[in-house]
Amino acid sequence: MKKESEARQPVRVVIIGGGFGGLECARNLRDPSFAVTLVDRRNHHLFQPLLYQVATAGLSAPEIAQPIRSLVRNQPNVTVLMEEAHAFDLAAKKVTLGGQVLEYDYLVLAMGAKTGYFGHHEWEEHAPGLKSLEDATQIRSRVLRAFERAEISTDDRERKRLMTMVVVGGGPTGVEMAGALAELSGKVLAEDFRRIRPEQAKVILIEAGPRLLATFPESLSAYAAERLRKMGVQVRLSTMVKDIGPALVQLDGEEIRAENIIWAAGVEAQSLTGTLGVPVDRGGRIQVEADCSLPGHPEVFAIGDLVSLTDKNKVRVPGVAPAATQMGRHVAKVIDAELRHRRMFDGAHQRAAFGYLDKGNMATIGRSSAVADAFGMKFRGWVAWLMWLFIHLLFLVGFRNRIAVVVQWVYSYFTWKRGARIIAR
Amino acid sequence: MKKESEARQPVRVVIIGGGFGGLECARNLRDPSFAVTLVDRRNHHLFQPLLYQVATAGLSAPEIAQPIRSLVRNQPNVTVLMEEAHAFDLAAKKVTLGGQVLEYDYLVLAMGAKTGYFGHHEWEEHAPGLKSLEDATQIRSRVLRAFERAEISTDDRERKRLMTMVVVGGGPTGVEMAGALAELSGKVLAEDFRRIRPEQAKVILIEAGPRLLATFPESLSAYAAERLRKMGVQVRLSTMVKDIGPALVQLDGEEIRAENIIWAAGVEAQSLTGTLGVPVDRGGRIQVEADCSLPGHPEVFAIGDLVSLTDKNKVRVPGVAPAATQMGRHVAKVIDAELRHRRMFDGAHQRAAFGYLDKGNMATIGRSSAVADAFGMKFRGWVAWLMWLFIHLLFLVGFRNRIAVVVQWVYSYFTWKRGARIIAR
Repeated sequence: MKKESEARQPVRVVIIGGGFGGLECARNLRDPSFAVTLVDRRNHHLFQPLLYQVATAGLSAPEIAQPIRSLVRNQPNVTVLMEEAHAFDLAAKKVTLGGQVLEYDYLVLAMGAKTGYFGHHEWEEHAPGLKSLEDATQIRSRVLRAFERAEISTDDRERKRLMTMVVVGGGPTGVEMAGALAELSGKVLAEDFRRIRPEQAKVILIEAGPRLLATFPESLSAYAAERLRKMGVQVRLSTMVKDIGPALVQLDGEEIRAENIIWAAGVEAQSLTGTLGVPVDRGGRIQVEADCSLPGHPEVFAIGDLVSLTDKNKVRVPGVAPAATQMGRHVAKVIDAELRHRRMFDGAHQRAAFGYLDKGNMATIGRSSAVADAFGMKFRGWVAWLMWLFIHLLFLVGFRNRIAVVVQWVYSYFTWKRGARIIAR
Repeated sequence: MKKESEARQPVRVVIIGGGFGGLECARNLRDPSFAVTLVDRRNHHLFQPLLYQVATAGLSAPEIAQPIRSLVRNQPNVTVLMEEAHAFDLAAKKVTLGGQVLEYDYLVLAMGAKTGYFGHHEWEEHAPGLKSLEDATQIRSRVLRAFERAEISTDDRERKRLMTMVVVGGGPTGVEMAGALAELSGKVLAEDFRRIRPEQAKVILIEAGPRLLATFPESLSAYAAERLRKMGVQVRLSTMVKDIGPALVQLDGEEIRAENIIWAAGVEAQSLTGTLGVPVDRGGRIQVEADCSLPGHPEVFAIGDLVSLTDKNKVRVPGVAPAATQMGRHVAKVIDAELRHRRMFDGAHQRAAFGYLDKGNMATIGRSSAVADAFGMKFRGWVAWLMWLFIHLLFLVGFRNRIAVVVQWVYSYFTWKRGARIIAR
């Protein structure tokens, strides 16, 4: 047993990324022995599960975002830097940011995912994804502007194109976007135009696989497809996208002209993972060890959408917010336990392996309609919708945001209006 | 007396601009004989008096804006087009928009004002004004980013520059901006940084004249200056700006290095007024007739910030929202009366002259502190502040916006937090 001197050096922990994983990790390193630096290229933490509501004018951007530094205001051992990480030198234990180099004892990579186009990067400009507030406000502007232009247009073909929206990808994001777009055109905008009839707009949801919501039980997938069809969405399953051009989706032997094409078909890890010198999968995800550390680098961890991991219970960890949060907490515990161990003993500390606790899956389809697969049970319809509302409000970060979002939701529920119909220039 | 046939041609009224004046005009032309086309290059009506709160992260953009077409949803005789007016042919009674030409029986020009630099257009990029939502969110991002960069910086001079903000112009907008910036740095951001102390940021308010709020009684000007100084704002009166460069304000024999320079010193009419062939003043404002029509063109009106007018009571009509609203209503009444007259009688109809009803002036300085000059009385301190809150909520367009703004204000009041601290990229 050894007793350390009172004047201990702080343990420098650098966390890259203030999303669900990085933020949770920082918040669980409360021991003042840790000097935590939380780096993010944006100033805000984003509640991504509600991003589709910003894209469809239901919520405004600040309602689902919070300044990262406000979220750790009461933790004096955390310094927040709005910077981009440019390079990692794992051998020297250094991270190069825009204007400075940070040395670390522990490094936690939590940069998250970006929209992935399966190698077709040229599709990005025609079919934006939905990962950031800028993505969402850009999609909002493009969709609303299309209706404005349709109102002005005198060419029938152009009008039809302007009033067609394609969502590629039938996962939760795609289903939620398609449902919200159908409600936007069918209800919210319906009475606001004089020359066009927004309810005649067409929303097409394209999924390559044989069913929507592939990670849900089959009965819920079928329910989602049926609900969407009732809302007027054209659901096309087992349909491959061959190519995407300007306002053009090319399928097998068919082309769809659509002013708005929204990509919800895949994500990949932020590109820096390729520079670390460790194995990554096709989506750039790092194959981490059982404790979330990098192979050969026990002092470096990767968490969240950045990793590919089968956990201690042989469960593949999915790329969802709860998984990122749990990994962030796990890594903080590992680092904290190691510090306590080192204060007391010499020699290595046996680290715990990460285990994912699956609390269930849910997706909303439209008003009073959602699906949820939780507690070993299946829920659908308004019960699932109420669960969805409750869970999302519960996990939305920040008291003010919760109040503001409740106000918006209640208002929209009763009026069919949406509060954020602003076209930015 | 003549009786018209039942099948009357609709009277085509084209209104350019959906601000306070244009919107009020459209809303008062309810007779189905009018086919009103309301044209705006933006899709939203903006409540400009609260724009400074968006610029200082207190409110989010959608909270002070509403889609124009929603605001006239229940008026089937109004068609809204999101288009820019490019040219006017007063002789042929035609307006050229982006993609079409509109013919009119009456034309109402209500395009409003833009930031004016007294001929120094080169100052615009260094010292943005505050007229649109984009202006406001850009200023918000620049101000918040300056603090982020100061936290990263290791150069004392650079830090000082990053933490200096200059507001040029001591009218209501300048006073409100300076007060809100002082609260932002002194209170809202104070505990969120580790390396810098935001409360040491410097806010400098520069006014060319001998006092702030020149249109208010002198005692209120003195009160505003004193309050701002107590809040830490450097108020510099009788101070001329010689030149503005990148992060640089040049005064007489002195230069101030400031990352953020905000221009609140003047506005001028939208440039198209110069193309009408009617007399305009130095600020591009049209010298309209007593009824707000253009000299020689009784079928064309100009209202709001676009005009220079001394009303029937010999009062100079100021460039404020209530004046624009009143002119909009006046013009609608003139057009409406003319229609009724023509249905009954031959010959010209005697038009009423516009009279401005001055309901008073108010400006907020900071929390619990404002000045108001209304009902022939002077108010200051928290009484004026409560009046200010009440009046602004009352006139804010839209029920949802009112609720949302109340939530934000109550929350900020008790927590000293601001809900819209988002830096857009």
